[in-house]
Amino acid sequence: MKHPYDLRLDVLTQAYRDGRLTPREVINTLRERALALNPEFNAFIYLLTPEELEPYLAALEGGSPQTLPLYGVPFAIKDNIDLAGVATTAACPAYAYQAREDATIVRQLIALGAIPLGKTNLDQFATGLNGTRSPYGACRNSVHADYPSGGSSAGSSLAVALGLASFALGTDTAGSGRVPAALNNLVGLKATKGLISTAGVVPACRTLDCVTFFTATATEASQLLALTAVQDPRDDYSRANPAWNGAQAFGVPAAGFRFGVPDRLEFLGCTESEALYHAAKERLIALGGVPVTIDFSPFLAAASLLYNGPWVAERYHVAGKLIEQQPDAVLPVIRDVLSKAPGTDAVAAFDAQYKLQGYKRACDAIMAELDCVLTPTYPRPVTLAELAEEPVKRNSDLGVYTNFMNLLDYAAVAVPAGHMANGLPSGVTLFGRAFTDQYLLSLADALQRQQNLALAGDRALHETAPATAASHDRLPVVVCGAHLDGLALNHQLRQRGATLRETTRSAPHYCLYALADGKRPGMVRDRERGAAIAVEVWELPHAEVGSFLAGIPAPLGLGKVELEDGRWLTGFICEKYGLQGAKDITAFGGWRAWLTQQK
Amino acid sequence: MKHPYDLRLDVLTQAYRDGRLTPREVINTLRERALALNPEFNAFIYLLTPEELEPYLAALEGGSPQTLPLYGVPFAIKDNIDLAGVATTAACPAYAYQAREDATIVRQLIALGAIPLGKTNLDQFATGLNGTRSPYGACRNSVHADYPSGGSSAGSSLAVALGLASFALGTDTAGSGRVPAALNNLVGLKATKGLISTAGVVPACRTLDCVTFFTATATEASQLLALTAVQDPRDDYSRANPAWNGAQAFGVPAAGFRFGVPDRLEFLGCTESEALYHAAKERLIALGGVPVTIDFSPFLAAASLLYNGPWVAERYHVAGKLIEQQPDAVLPVIRDVLSKAPGTDAVAAFDAQYKLQGYKRACDAIMAELDCVLTPTYPRPVTLAELAEEPVKRNSDLGVYTNFMNLLDYAAVAVPAGHMANGLPSGVTLFGRAFTDQYLLSLADALQRQQNLALAGDRALHETAPATAASHDRLPVVVCGAHLDGLALNHQLRQRGATLRETTRSAPHYCLYALADGKRPGMVRDRERGAAIAVEVWELPHAEVGSFLAGIPAPLGLGKVELEDGRWLTGFICEKYGLQGAKDITAFGGWRAWLTQQK
Repeated sequence: MKHPYDLRLDVLTQAYRDGRLTPREVINTLRERALALNPEFNAFIYLLTPEELEPYLAALEGGSPQTLPLYGVPFAIKDNIDLAGVATTAACPAYAYQAREDATIVRQLIALGAIPLGKTNLDQFATGLNGTRSPYGACRNSVHADYPSGGSSAGSSLAVALGLASFALGTDTAGSGRVPAALNNLVGLKATKGLISTAGVVPACRTLDCVTFFTATATEASQLLALTAVQDPRDDYSRANPAWNGAQAFGVPAAGFRFGVPDRLEFLGCTESEALYHAAKERLIALGGVPVTIDFSPFLAAASLLYNGPWVAERYHVAGKLIEQQPDAVLPVIRDVLSKAPGTDAVAAFDAQYKLQGYKRACDAIMAELDCVLTPTYPRPVTLAELAEEPVKRNSDLGVYTNFMNLLDYAAVAVPAGHMANGLPSGVTLFGRAFTDQYLLSLADALQRQQNLALAGDRALHETAPATAASHDRLPVVVCGAHLDGLALNHQLRQRGATLRETTRSAPHYCLYALADGKRPGMVRDRERGAAIAVEVWELPHAEVGSFLAGIPAPLGLGKVELEDGRWLTGFICEKYGLQGAKDITAFGGWRAWLTQQK
Repeated sequence: MKHPYDLRLDVLTQAYRDGRLTPREVINTLRERALALNPEFNAFIYLLTPEELEPYLAALEGGSPQTLPLYGVPFAIKDNIDLAGVATTAACPAYAYQAREDATIVRQLIALGAIPLGKTNLDQFATGLNGTRSPYGACRNSVHADYPSGGSSAGSSLAVALGLASFALGTDTAGSGRVPAALNNLVGLKATKGLISTAGVVPACRTLDCVTFFTATATEASQLLALTAVQDPRDDYSRANPAWNGAQAFGVPAAGFRFGVPDRLEFLGCTESEALYHAAKERLIALGGVPVTIDFSPFLAAASLLYNGPWVAERYHVAGKLIEQQPDAVLPVIRDVLSKAPGTDAVAAFDAQYKLQGYKRACDAIMAELDCVLTPTYPRPVTLAELAEEPVKRNSDLGVYTNFMNLLDYAAVAVPAGHMANGLPSGVTLFGRAFTDQYLLSLADALQRQQNLALAGDRALHETAPATAASHDRLPVVVCGAHLDGLALNHQLRQRGATLRETTRSAPHYCLYALADGKRPGMVRDRERGAAIAVEVWELPHAEVGSFLAGIPAPLGLGKVELEDGRWLTGFICEKYGLQGAKDITAFGGWRAWLTQQK
């Protein structure tokens, strides 16, 4: 399938800057192409008319690719997210309403210069993982006609995979933003709950829903997240994004990261899926990752609550009244899923929340020791024929690795992981603690570059890797004195949950002094007389950095220290005035050696 | 009423250290006294026998007041908290069970040397705020016989107020650890949810329950919290206490703190209560506090959900089966309160959670601008006669200022605030963001010292004030360069939610240099040549300190800077090597003045 344009954000923006393309030309061409493809793929429920597109194009005339980060970037919107002036159907005509205003995320994107092309097909009420549960037609896979697109964000994944949009908005409660990414060779970012506003989105489960991005690359998902993760007063569940999870956190992950690998993996008999997962695991190892086998049972236990617990009642909150009044307006399979809800009482609802809290405690303890977890995105693909035969069971099969994520409040990125022999795309998921999205995207980006898979449209990943180091919710801190492992102040690190990541040396440009109090060293940069000093790198949770810093008495402080491999990390420095009465102990090569000699 | 001992932690420990008292003597005397007082006050449901006390006393022989922080300290346990080997009744004989092991908090305290005296009376199933809803007898007030003790932690408040224990454990879901504190001239600490383990506690609402401390002074509550706030694997709702909320955070609050004052205050016609509240407000102002009028409506709206929403179903979780099987085993008033539960369905339960989330968003926005809020603890006292006449309404009257706290996840300290003309104690509550407990206790301590109220037993607060500065969940950072308000890097502070707290100068011991890059100053301590430099103090949320620090390039860092009033705060420092090519601009007195001159 030939794509008219390379729609990746940077490539398209460059084409606009160079004057090689104009937004009007791109949008019109894509619209024509979408009209041509839609009978086969059913990707769009509604495509904006040229008249409806005109105001968006006209608005760009006030800006330029230099001033608007998403100038002229075409995007598609899942049809459970409001676009002002157009119907929101949630794939249920009887439910449809005319949206009076944009969903917050849509408004943000348009304000940044992006152009909405239309509203995409979905499993009705976003209840499904396959893409066939829609009165607007089933969504076939972008690559292989015997397979579904995956869902519920079916049409959104197709819009990007078919080259009709640079990115698309999905939603994700149980995996709806990840399963279709895996089946269509895309990146699917389900960011930490609350980072992307859900105001103006038809809820599935309001306490769990996320808006997602489908993109060709992790770089683009990182850019979109950085542009839109703003606390929204319209969304009661919106959360502020801590600065450590901002754009600058996206970069090259340092070697030595620990990734969890489930102790029991389920591929439902699909050896190809299994092989592709293990290949991805090996690639992460090649990138410097350290695999850690983890107990996966509490994650799976949490997942089982989603459709057997009170969260079904949350879904009923939206569609329940319609089912009661016009049962035939809702697809039978959706009715069946929601039929459990009315019997659930509040006592049972709390009971399930207690259970979930127990699983979360167990899972959080596992996650605390890791930088991320690597799973398949789906265990095995299912065919359209299989889905038709067993619509609920085969749908559930797709959610083995996705259902627990939102319940447990983790961030997740689905990343392409290669193709089956029949050409069908497969994928893996990297997930981690809340607010480590940009770090996960950094790993996803490294994985994409490492495997160098063809992107949609047979394009290769040619951009250069990020220049900066990736960071997450823990800060590496270089220590050189009483905070070293086992020494007098080391407890200040350990009681804050810090972990020792590295024993190394500074660049050979430091002098070490024993301060006059006899208890502390001062490490002072001196390119002329300096030597390499023995240091340790500890990782400290961000929430604890402030109190650690507050407890450091003058003349010491935290600045930047150069390590022997050239990295500059946060670490102990010493003010000049504090050296009065200090003794130069550089020759010992480190505080520990000096202490030993003192004994 | 004469008390045999001054049971405050420090005083008692000193008496043990000096050999003036022994734990055996103290415990035996208190037990006799409790037996003598119990017919009148009904404070204890069960007092340990001398044989049951013996093992606790014997265990102390392996330690000393030097090694055990709570050596020989007598404490009382609300009878919904397990003490191994003794029945837990929750004030319902039909519900009672023999506890096989200690609740985590009880085990922690005993391991620290504390001695459990017995189990205290409570409103049945901790459902009530008055102390009369018990088959073990109503609890009268410690001071005035016409009034109740307050509840539900009725007997625990009496144990401390009557001088029978140094401290007592209560529980608090809707105010049960605060209302009785106010009515009995005590400090009642309802710490942040999850800081004190609830493992081994009969739940009221598991998602909201807290264990509380009753003490004579805020200092003691601070010590107890610091000793016991440890994450507990037995409690799924347990949370780690960040180091900024540790023992060192308790100190003297800096002047300029902003305290919220509700725009509409309800005293239900009690002018004495009103006068005492305003007197407390004036005392906070005298301590340097700045009152800020706040919209109190979202707090009150959240409170209304507690007994009209699905949280009643949480209570039903515990007592429901008993009510169904033996309705007469439960007090009629408790049956009535819980009778709403069975009709609540899961859809309504989620609906109430959405509402709560909306109120919480509104309240959090208000709290973000404040260091704490000051409210009355109860609007007006109610008499035993009034309670007998209207048991539900009069009980509700007591909870106006307490019901919202746990739903909104705030920390709260009830502090004595003086006495009515008839001698009845009154109180105020300081509440704040989660994990600011030690800061709130610092304010409570300052308030107690400022008003110098008599403690239980007519003792005065004679200890010296803490020597350190109080701190909370934001770190003061001294900036002197491009981070100053309005300058080039100031956005790095603002985007992290930092607020400008002070414009001041450094001590006259600093030189200021324009670094060679021309963009940044370096502030270098130099007692000989230095001058006072213009600086600003910004308050940065702890979670954001790490990323702010990570973004500071060499040769700058964060260390300690001395201000003109002698305080040493975290602030920008500069390494010596970075001064190469720098220009001494000390004479300008500040970076802003230098920039102006440059133009």
